[in-house]
Amino acid sequence: MKEIYLDYNATTPLRAEVRSALIEDFPIYGNASSMHAAGREAKNRVEEARNRVGELLGVPAKTVIFTSGGSESNNTVFSTMRRLASDSRGAPLSQGRRGLITTTIEHPCVLNSAKYLESLGYQVNFIPVDKDGKLVTAELKKVLNEETLFVSVMMANNEIGTVQDIKEIAGMVKAAGAWMHTDAVQAVGKIPLDAADLGVDYLTMSAHKIYGPKGTGALYVREHAPAYPLIHGGHQEDGMRAGTYNNIGILGLGKAAELAKRDLEHYGREMGALRKRLKDALETAVPNIKINGHPEDVLPNTLNVSFPGAEGEAILLSLDLAGIEVSTGSACASGSLEPSHVLLAIGAGPELAHGSIRFSLGLGISEADIDYVAAAVPPIIKRLRSMSTLV
Amino acid sequence: MKEIYLDYNATTPLRAEVRSALIEDFPIYGNASSMHAAGREAKNRVEEARNRVGELLGVPAKTVIFTSGGSESNNTVFSTMRRLASDSRGAPLSQGRRGLITTTIEHPCVLNSAKYLESLGYQVNFIPVDKDGKLVTAELKKVLNEETLFVSVMMANNEIGTVQDIKEIAGMVKAAGAWMHTDAVQAVGKIPLDAADLGVDYLTMSAHKIYGPKGTGALYVREHAPAYPLIHGGHQEDGMRAGTYNNIGILGLGKAAELAKRDLEHYGREMGALRKRLKDALETAVPNIKINGHPEDVLPNTLNVSFPGAEGEAILLSLDLAGIEVSTGSACASGSLEPSHVLLAIGAGPELAHGSIRFSLGLGISEADIDYVAAAVPPIIKRLRSMSTLV
Repeated sequence: MKEIYLDYNATTPLRAEVRSALIEDFPIYGNASSMHAAGREAKNRVEEARNRVGELLGVPAKTVIFTSGGSESNNTVFSTMRRLASDSRGAPLSQGRRGLITTTIEHPCVLNSAKYLESLGYQVNFIPVDKDGKLVTAELKKVLNEETLFVSVMMANNEIGTVQDIKEIAGMVKAAGAWMHTDAVQAVGKIPLDAADLGVDYLTMSAHKIYGPKGTGALYVREHAPAYPLIHGGHQEDGMRAGTYNNIGILGLGKAAELAKRDLEHYGREMGALRKRLKDALETAVPNIKINGHPEDVLPNTLNVSFPGAEGEAILLSLDLAGIEVSTGSACASGSLEPSHVLLAIGAGPELAHGSIRFSLGLGISEADIDYVAAAVPPIIKRLRSMSTLV
Repeated sequence: MKEIYLDYNATTPLRAEVRSALIEDFPIYGNASSMHAAGREAKNRVEEARNRVGELLGVPAKTVIFTSGGSESNNTVFSTMRRLASDSRGAPLSQGRRGLITTTIEHPCVLNSAKYLESLGYQVNFIPVDKDGKLVTAELKKVLNEETLFVSVMMANNEIGTVQDIKEIAGMVKAAGAWMHTDAVQAVGKIPLDAADLGVDYLTMSAHKIYGPKGTGALYVREHAPAYPLIHGGHQEDGMRAGTYNNIGILGLGKAAELAKRDLEHYGREMGALRKRLKDALETAVPNIKINGHPEDVLPNTLNVSFPGAEGEAILLSLDLAGIEVSTGSACASGSLEPSHVLLAIGAGPELAHGSIRFSLGLGISEADIDYVAAAVPPIIKRLRSMSTLV
């Protein structure tokens, strides 16, 4: 059966070079904290991987902390901020600040971490975005003040692909004396990114969004920015993250990072062309659709489309039967029947929010695949819309 | 060059069947939270793995939460307890209790988590063990009272291998109305273990100690025992652990668990015989040594030996040159020059504590390997002791 996977923002398969690297690395089994040869070899390989990740992010290797993924990286920042604001030792750094600013369109991981801080009595501002999903800087200015402990703004949105002006935002945040975090899970490997140049204090990335293994990610912590472990225990990662080094995952991330850096420009161009081909075809073949997200500042691989009059989950399941795998929103939020919080935030009414599909493209997708999808979608929408009218 | 790895308590290599399973599973790339076919397949495989882990631990699959490893599992319990004691919602369950009891010989992960709670104002009791490393139950009785929120006692010690009477301890703890956690990372797969029968509320295990992949572990949470996420975010694991499912790691853990259950009896017998062979040979060939740990209630694969007059790190490095890889303590504590907290806790003076070696055995070690090691150790000890006398 045909299978065209267009859900690369949910996760990517391992690319062939990463698979080979993982298999080659299986014999690297030592505990990287052990002093003997097996341990030292594991440690050396981990540090090589750290170099590759540092190169991809444009930062010194020593500022890269390996984690179990994007969610843990984000949570490490949020728990660091909680400790800064609540522990006596944090006081000199946070100067009593207890305010957090984030946006309404963050990944559930950041949103739920923010809500958790809110439940503990922290002042949390969820600032709005405009109809293209761009943070409204005037709104940020309104709430950014000497009470603000930190600001967390995602670099690129997972659902609609809108890319924020992180450098500008970070400039405002640093001028206000607050810490700046960006969840760059969806941006890394898709668009040029230099964490040092962005001026952020913390940046989150994940391996499985760039064709590396699941269960591995990294957190960039700018030199001299505060950081406390989320996971207490051994001395790994300079005491910043306990737990035996996940050799295989980390080496896989290193390989994926190396390839992402090498291919960045070509990848972006290729994805952008495929996205345009799909967008043009759908706009031509399906009446009354709406493309969500910013027209220019958007991930080259992400096309989010609202099909008014058709229900997203029904579209998804119909496409799945045709061997086309897409998403209605974030996979992390699946199981819930609520409309996408991102689409609601950009002003889509419930009908549009419920009737949208995210096509996210990646390696191995051909023009022929895009044409197959572009041919499969119109009759499905037509059928669902006609049923909808009958109800 | 010869390489005999005797550091299986630090970590194990992937066993051949797990390697094959991982390679077979590489194509299972979907996000297990996605609704389409690739997502559903990943989810089904994750649930199969959960069944295998449940079977190994003797508990229903639904009580098993996948984590990034033993450290995260332990930290999840400790942060749950912190929230129980500090959040308003926790009050009815914890009834204002703020006391934690643990032992002096826990893994650094538990010790440091306990110290963190202590720094936040919790009442923490580190109770002593006897000369064989057994928890002194009279000491536990002394401090266990209506203020005790929870008790955390490791099932088997990573350094000396002593196995605690967890069922008896859990009975005392539950009778006092407190929650009971055991870090069973070193026990699982080495000795028979039934978490339900033990009567614990929480049990920690790790994949990479049973020939599975690093970066994956599990936490058993007894039905109706409280649990809050350490990592906030998506709805994975019934909201208990956010983050994209680590398909490969989890499937590898499932395979490792299946094999551990199948081989448990044979594995224990084989390791016990090898351990006895090494112990007898060293006791015969090296004068004035001391075997640390309980004489009977000890992991079948773990032999901890003190060589008074020789320095542990010097022994380790000399053995490493001979292609024999061992440990002086926990790999997680390496990098520090402090003597083993476990050996100090069982009453070894600094000299014994500094001069001890942990031989931990595992799959693939032959009698010939043991004989090679038994022949290599005596001249090294003799040389180091003679140098030590000269100083």
